[in-house]
Amino acid sequence: MELGEKTVRKNYVFRGKIINVRRDDAMLPNGNACTREVVEHPGGACVLAVTEESVILVKQFRYAYGEELWEIPAGKLNAGEDPMRAALRELEEETGYCADSLELIFTIYPTPGYSDEKIYIYEAKEVAKGSAHPDEDEFLDVVRVPLEEAYAMVQDGRIKDGKTIIALQYRQLRG
Amino acid sequence: MELGEKTVRKNYVFRGKIINVRRDDAMLPNGNACTREVVEHPGGACVLAVTEESVILVKQFRYAYGEELWEIPAGKLNAGEDPMRAALRELEEETGYCADSLELIFTIYPTPGYSDEKIYIYEAKEVAKGSAHPDEDEFLDVVRVPLEEAYAMVQDGRIKDGKTIIALQYRQLRG
Repeated sequence: MELGEKTVRKNYVFRGKIINVRRDDAMLPNGNACTREVVEHPGGACVLAVTEESVILVKQFRYAYGEELWEIPAGKLNAGEDPMRAALRELEEETGYCADSLELIFTIYPTPGYSDEKIYIYEAKEVAKGSAHPDEDEFLDVVRVPLEEAYAMVQDGRIKDGKTIIALQYRQLRG
Repeated sequence: MELGEKTVRKNYVFRGKIINVRRDDAMLPNGNACTREVVEHPGGACVLAVTEESVILVKQFRYAYGEELWEIPAGKLNAGEDPMRAALRELEEETGYCADSLELIFTIYPTPGYSDEKIYIYEAKEVAKGSAHPDEDEFLDVVRVPLEEAYAMVQDGRIKDGKTIIALQYRQLRG
């Protein structure tokens, strides 16, 4: 079956700092007209960084949920930025840890229903301690959590962030 | 450290069929003013349904990405709808399979940077074949994929959808 939908006209309804929003006129595979709401996002990069059998997590208030969430270090891409460079930058800025190199382990699509965001998940090699220098106006706690404890936090729901669950389950599966 | 941010004023900039969008005036923990862009979404429900060592996947064109994606059966919640009811409905409507019961295995936050969407992931018990009756204007292929093949599709990147990766990793971890 041909499943594709065609864009008839892109209509921007909001242009923000983080996201743009469109309500497009589109055409279904059967030729029927429809509208499609789309959030444009530049994409994000994050890092699974393990040192001495502990994973580096950040605890951060997330305004949209009104909650503090546990996440692996992450940030959005600047325009045109290489995701690996962004991942290295966020790891160092947010946590003060640095890595010799990163390996891309996943490119995930977190919200296929309405957003074009892609999240690049890297695994850090040779993690070492430096010094954190978060953005002014960035507030977070950095914690080293033993892997077994982190796996338990995924299972009991204390870790809720999708990219963090994927990275930790990946690590657990590899053993 | 107190990490919370406070809403000063909610400002709606778009009200759509699937999402609403706000650009709020807010206050950081240090008292500085900031703006926060928020996508409001009613939430989604999805189902890991395995029968005879195969997982039921749907292949669907996703407009925001301009690609066909492999996903476990899923749909957004209607206003005030119980997520489990939504999950059962989507499984049956999209795939024609039904389940005796569902168990909630994850509540994930897919996009903490800008959206309030929560995705409820269920595991189906006693999956049986009925007959599909997708929404008019819903176009998708339903495929039963052997679990080992599905795990390989996660590893090699053919499966990109976050909730689907989480559900399959969960199943693989449980062995």
